Amino acid sequence: MAGLEYSLEKLHEKLTEYCKSEYYPIHMPGHKRNTAWNMESYGIDITEIDGFDNLHQAEGIIKEGESRAARVFGSEESHYLINGSTCGILSAVSAVYKKGKTLIVARNCHKSVYHALLLNEAKAEYLYPKYDKRFCINGGISPDEVERMIADKGSEICGVLITSPTYDGVVSDIARIVEIAHERKIPVIVDEAHGAHFAADGDSPKSAVACGADIVIQSLHKTLPSLTQTAILHVNGVLVDRNCLRQYLQIYQTSSPSYVLMASISRCIDWLETEGKKEYKAFHEKLDKFHAMTDNLKHLHILRKQDYFDGKKSESHYAVFDYDESKVLISTVGTKMGGKELSDLLRKEYHIEMEMAAKDYALGIFTAMDTDEGMTRLADALINIDAALDRDCKEASSKKLQGECENPKDSIAQYPISIRIHTIADALKKEQETVTFDKALERECAEFIYVYPPGIPLLAPGECVSKEIYSLLGQLQEKGLLTLDTVRVVQR
Amino acid sequence: MAGLEYSLEKLHEKLTEYCKSEYYPIHMPGHKRNTAWNMESYGIDITEIDGFDNLHQAEGIIKEGESRAARVFGSEESHYLINGSTCGILSAVSAVYKKGKTLIVARNCHKSVYHALLLNEAKAEYLYPKYDKRFCINGGISPDEVERMIADKGSEICGVLITSPTYDGVVSDIARIVEIAHERKIPVIVDEAHGAHFAADGDSPKSAVACGADIVIQSLHKTLPSLTQTAILHVNGVLVDRNCLRQYLQIYQTSSPSYVLMASISRCIDWLETEGKKEYKAFHEKLDKFHAMTDNLKHLHILRKQDYFDGKKSESHYAVFDYDESKVLISTVGTKMGGKELSDLLRKEYHIEMEMAAKDYALGIFTAMDTDEGMTRLADALINIDAALDRDCKEASSKKLQGECENPKDSIAQYPISIRIHTIADALKKEQETVTFDKALERECAEFIYVYPPGIPLLAPGECVSKEIYSLLGQLQEKGLLTLDTVRVVQR
Repeated sequence: MAGLEYSLEKLHEKLTEYCKSEYYPIHMPGHKRNTAWNMESYGIDITEIDGFDNLHQAEGIIKEGESRAARVFGSEESHYLINGSTCGILSAVSAVYKKGKTLIVARNCHKSVYHALLLNEAKAEYLYPKYDKRFCINGGISPDEVERMIADKGSEICGVLITSPTYDGVVSDIARIVEIAHERKIPVIVDEAHGAHFAADGDSPKSAVACGADIVIQSLHKTLPSLTQTAILHVNGVLVDRNCLRQYLQIYQTSSPSYVLMASISRCIDWLETEGKKEYKAFHEKLDKFHAMTDNLKHLHILRKQDYFDGKKSESHYAVFDYDESKVLISTVGTKMGGKELSDLLRKEYHIEMEMAAKDYALGIFTAMDTDEGMTRLADALINIDAALDRDCKEASSKKLQGECENPKDSIAQYPISIRIHTIADALKKEQETVTFDKALERECAEFIYVYPPGIPLLAPGECVSKEIYSLLGQLQEKGLLTLDTVRVVQR
Repeated sequence: MAGLEYSLEKLHEKLTEYCKSEYYPIHMPGHKRNTAWNMESYGIDITEIDGFDNLHQAEGIIKEGESRAARVFGSEESHYLINGSTCGILSAVSAVYKKGKTLIVARNCHKSVYHALLLNEAKAEYLYPKYDKRFCINGGISPDEVERMIADKGSEICGVLITSPTYDGVVSDIARIVEIAHERKIPVIVDEAHGAHFAADGDSPKSAVACGADIVIQSLHKTLPSLTQTAILHVNGVLVDRNCLRQYLQIYQTSSPSYVLMASISRCIDWLETEGKKEYKAFHEKLDKFHAMTDNLKHLHILRKQDYFDGKKSESHYAVFDYDESKVLISTVGTKMGGKELSDLLRKEYHIEMEMAAKDYALGIFTAMDTDEGMTRLADALINIDAALDRDCKEASSKKLQGECENPKDSIAQYPISIRIHTIADALKKEQETVTFDKALERECAEFIYVYPPGIPLLAPGECVSKEIYSLLGQLQEKGLLTLDTVRVVQR
């Protein structure tokens, strides 16, 4: 934060300073630091005293809140999570995975899914998302591929785990995938961490809960007004052992849950039920205004639904079933600018902080808590930057949209097919050594390697550092998106 | 809360109401809801933006805070925990346990330890604490028993896990236990959740960190001014694979850690370093005053160091090495009153909330954040209650201290030796059924059964519901400390 000075040892002071600064968040948490929502922190921070229930044996006010959540999100059973979607993913996989069986997992899942595979010593078969080389992002997971894989593996399969929407806002055809899996009585877990607002927002894609998924995990803090680290897990149907699931929720969450976090969950659900409809109507008006302002950018391009649904059935090509336009994915493809350059520029020159910088785009998140002023600030900034690009690179405009990442192969989004030598758990049980990056080629990786955000492993333990992945990691380092001096590998 | 009315669906409103009420907390969190400490909640709740580091790859301000913590607590390496001591316990056991080996575990450990055994499919040998039948509480873990067990099991042992201090404030001889274990290069994990203040308070027992334990987990929120759900893990020496430990800390904690929680950890450590000495001097003056006021109670008895160290080497008898007098353990032994009656009375008549009600005592926690007024309020209340007891039961006084729990066998603290049929993990893999309590006798339990607080399992999966434990569970239900209509058991 150029210009700001702190005693570096005091996080609380630095945060309070930053809270007073005029930096505008196009990133999570979804409450957008709306100080009007501030509540006592220490003042309401209690323990399980008489009358305040117990998250792990909810019978009173917490139980009632969870029932209310089930109503609002349309689920049969909902659980507050105070250890993020992470603990929901760990619990879901632990409850669904059966020793010796195989879990079908979308390769573009968050690291917590890979951690769950490790804890359960699980065998996994990966589904690779379609790749949209126009924007260098992942498309969706094709139901046909799910069907093929289930047909191949038959009774070996104990569950399917898909991330939808993705960090970038791409929604897969969950209803169809659920239909396919349920024909064989296979439960479907959907990591909907980025789609908690779907249930409340009529103009959003349909929630995986409504699509019949068996377990759906949503981060409340990402797109709704709730404190960071809060999430919710929904269960439906009879394919999941709910006792077992509840037990794992107790295991992966502290026995001293924060009432501050639980209070913010309760407020968020209260807000959804009472204000949601009105707030989302207003939100879409602000969003339309933003899109109208940025529609004529010459070089930068903001990803829209129409990029997939323009008459041509491109959704079949990219397996994109729907797109969440509350995401602001600003593509720099066809310009001289990279995603990191763009987001650095927005921070330094405009004091606008984005959610993520990828190689070929900068990503932001709009929520119902964004102000018209904040959204307009971003639109104006992008118009200025786009005009400057105009002066820089005359030829750029021609490239726009016809353009592709100069080398799709080096996109973080296009995962080279992983060559697996051992399961994650088995690899981590082997003797290991640390080697310099240049010595890692063709070795068996013994750690998770990812760019955060989005936190999707490019390499997991037990996978071979192939030529393809090696060159991708090299290029990510050149772009400053990753630093990787050494790599832990399995000893030969 | 008699007299208070809320919309039961709105936890945040009920908490705010309660925060305004005059109920005084003799319970955690250690900040005692000191509103002077209030900070922005939503206002400072950010994500991993530029300049604010990343808990899971700490290189900046969080890393510096952790180094500062290591300085303050005297450890080699310290880690902030935002999923409570629970995630520290899970990580410590996962890093130390080796497949097929055996972990020595004190039977009076918190349920998170049993959860860690489950996740690691671990074999465990239990150490039983000495039992102090004068107060119906657990004493310490005898170093001699640790020595015997290590000698018996030899190379089969991969680690020792002890809880010290206990919920009741009893400290074991950690230095000696560490010495014994280290002779065989066996790492020692200490659950010091209730002893985070030891390092800062010169008049407290010595911290397990200073005693040379390899991993020490402390709850910051229990006895220090830090928000609920915050804790810290310390590592020392070379017996623990620190890479492996760090990896598990990433696994068991959300990838979206709360900056509000981390800020409160940072403030707490700042307070310890700058104000600690002064604050603890003042605290002990308040504590002395409280003890002076309650010294002459005729029937109720507040547990003191001198109950163990009165010339007679009673510590050898109860394996109590030291006692933490910041705990307020009010024994009702020898009176007609039970612990639950006492704490209900304190709540209803005096608006004083205790931490825990056990069969024969009520337990409270004093911290440096308690006010003289609050501590005096408790002392005055106890003097009144004691006087009333005087009128009720003439004979009671004679019993005092010579007295014993009318039936030590039915104390929650005296664990019947568990009869294990399978490991926790193996038992949970078996077919199960739910039976009514009266049908559970002699069956193999398939769930954790505990009174919370303290959350120490009386039965774990894979253990037999013996006559002894069955009668204990029955009596706990009569006393209203447990409700147990049904029990999950392994199918025959």
